[in-house]
Amino acid sequence: MAKILCVLYDDPVTGYPKSYARDDVPKVERYPGGQTAPTPKRIDFKPGELLGSVSGELGLRKFLEEGGHRLVVTSDKEGADSVFERELPDADIVISQPFWPAYLTPERIAKAKNLKLAITAGIGSDHVDLQAAIKHGVTVAEVTYSNSISVSEHVVMMILGLVRNYIPSYQWVVKGGWNIADCVARSYDLEAMNVGTVAAGRIGLAVLRRLKPFDVKLHYTDRHRLPEAQEHELGLTWHPTVESMIKVCDVVTINALLHPETEHLFNDALIAKMKRGAYLVNTARGRICDRDAIVRALESGQLAGYAGDVWFPQPAPADHPWRSMPHHGMTPHISGSSLSAQARYAAGTREILECWFDKRPIREEYLIVDGGKLAGAGAHSYSVAKP
Amino acid sequence: MAKILCVLYDDPVTGYPKSYARDDVPKVERYPGGQTAPTPKRIDFKPGELLGSVSGELGLRKFLEEGGHRLVVTSDKEGADSVFERELPDADIVISQPFWPAYLTPERIAKAKNLKLAITAGIGSDHVDLQAAIKHGVTVAEVTYSNSISVSEHVVMMILGLVRNYIPSYQWVVKGGWNIADCVARSYDLEAMNVGTVAAGRIGLAVLRRLKPFDVKLHYTDRHRLPEAQEHELGLTWHPTVESMIKVCDVVTINALLHPETEHLFNDALIAKMKRGAYLVNTARGRICDRDAIVRALESGQLAGYAGDVWFPQPAPADHPWRSMPHHGMTPHISGSSLSAQARYAAGTREILECWFDKRPIREEYLIVDGGKLAGAGAHSYSVAKP
Repeated sequence: MAKILCVLYDDPVTGYPKSYARDDVPKVERYPGGQTAPTPKRIDFKPGELLGSVSGELGLRKFLEEGGHRLVVTSDKEGADSVFERELPDADIVISQPFWPAYLTPERIAKAKNLKLAITAGIGSDHVDLQAAIKHGVTVAEVTYSNSISVSEHVVMMILGLVRNYIPSYQWVVKGGWNIADCVARSYDLEAMNVGTVAAGRIGLAVLRRLKPFDVKLHYTDRHRLPEAQEHELGLTWHPTVESMIKVCDVVTINALLHPETEHLFNDALIAKMKRGAYLVNTARGRICDRDAIVRALESGQLAGYAGDVWFPQPAPADHPWRSMPHHGMTPHISGSSLSAQARYAAGTREILECWFDKRPIREEYLIVDGGKLAGAGAHSYSVAKP
Repeated sequence: MAKILCVLYDDPVTGYPKSYARDDVPKVERYPGGQTAPTPKRIDFKPGELLGSVSGELGLRKFLEEGGHRLVVTSDKEGADSVFERELPDADIVISQPFWPAYLTPERIAKAKNLKLAITAGIGSDHVDLQAAIKHGVTVAEVTYSNSISVSEHVVMMILGLVRNYIPSYQWVVKGGWNIADCVARSYDLEAMNVGTVAAGRIGLAVLRRLKPFDVKLHYTDRHRLPEAQEHELGLTWHPTVESMIKVCDVVTINALLHPETEHLFNDALIAKMKRGAYLVNTARGRICDRDAIVRALESGQLAGYAGDVWFPQPAPADHPWRSMPHHGMTPHISGSSLSAQARYAAGTREILECWFDKRPIREEYLIVDGGKLAGAGAHSYSVAKP
């Protein structure tokens, strides 16, 4: 009998919304490369619902209570008095989402004596101190690939939106104008531009694939070089360093993990090496960019636009300068939380819990930390300091 | 010595903007299929400038004045007292753009005794009464393909923007919120959806090509069936009627010409046959949709979103209901007027004028009406009532 502590984003307690814009979400059976979408034995929710919210409870309540477990769901996660902090000491399992993360610091992990499993409903476990998880024998798992394609769509949308000057032009419509000059004076075609991705993992590669028919010149930099056939198929130019890539790019998209080498990678010095008027899109992690350097570059015109949906901290405070800087196309951290993605990561969370309670192995590809070491996906993507 | 009357969109007389977001636009040499981009002997402008505006003069003044011609440029085109109306009677050549059209009605053509050539700087000559042009021996030409790809990019951007709920989520950022539930309750992935285009000409086909790697199911309806190899390559399902296509589609994009069969095609009856919660994107012509039927469908939830950049009339009045209807992602008519596109259609306009003054033939693919009949591109795309 376990206690599951689930930190989810808020919505009105009565449930939200009353009705959905659409009756269903298309079913995705497999991801590129062949990995199957989550395969829980059963689900108790309807794909397309707002599952990741407090009222949605990731569709887990019935399943957990029938199994005799206790589910605590809250959005209150900040400060010593928060529900999360109070419920953590006897929790066996913690679940949260990267854009509303329950930060599992070394102190909290030390305090959570019963904690055995931390699940990211989604992808990205940098809110968990992996070193501490390893030390305390906590298994860390995430729903690998569940929303990678969602994010890649967001990236393409934002690139087009910035380059074509979408949102300011929309705003002229709403204001009642027909100011063609004001709309198009910053509107370009993406065609024939040089577009590069920092890292070509699942998301970066999916972005490259989607951009291919736009007749752009595609670039990437990544420690792991892609297979030659893939480079050839997509017409990719590989760069050994970020510097060599960003110099030639009109558009740069960041699809890298946050680690010491990528933290504040895009600072004044690097941005100064970009082409004047380049666009930068970051849906990876906010801290990969130096917050104030981005603002300065937009104000000076060194960057023509910045978009993304990752911030630091999250939630972003109301006075975060990225909310008001010029020429931005930001969203809150939502790119991986479309209703389509929520259906997949809710199912994946259920699959992980079913395996856990049945004492069946969790899929290798979902594991970040297991048995006191980096495992599965974690061994590929994360690193921890040597002890 | 000819008088050229050029109707362009307005901007501050001093020129706008003072500096551009970018230093250049990538050069496109050829369009898909092999047609070359415009090949004037020379240009007197820098690609990337705001050429289609009154201050930009399509980069033509030097060229025309050196040739001894007279260039009159104005944005004032409405009403009997407008500069356009006053300057028309002795104009030899009229130039305008589809989103700021100099309507050449039968009455005006009858009045313009010297008129020999009407050029669309861009694509789409439905602002010219072709029957009257034929009758009065006016040649009608447009810069075919100059901005087709631009529009196709706009379509993909708008589809992603509607499906993923981009603009409302952006607005939460600006308002200072972190309302994940409010953002994602209407956010879906495009992946695996059914997407169909009404017509698969240059723009429709370019849209289909760009959507292919999004792993959607692609549909089209068109009188002209595409070659089997193309259908196979893109995985297209052809539909004999609009009705049979829209029934199965989550997203419908309109890329058809305006003619009697497409005028008000999307009315209450047709929209009622769409899937509830479908998205409609129209960058073709405003009158292909019934204005108030669109508003009703968005208000009832039959459509989950509507975007596009074509209106009727143009400019749209400040109280046009499409400016304020729910769940829209409209822009003014700008999709074909990125600075990249303006460079091409300004060069194409120059090419047409060079041919005209040199008495060399205008490219077949630019001609809509010539020698008293539909010609070139016009013969393929337009129809006029039999006399």
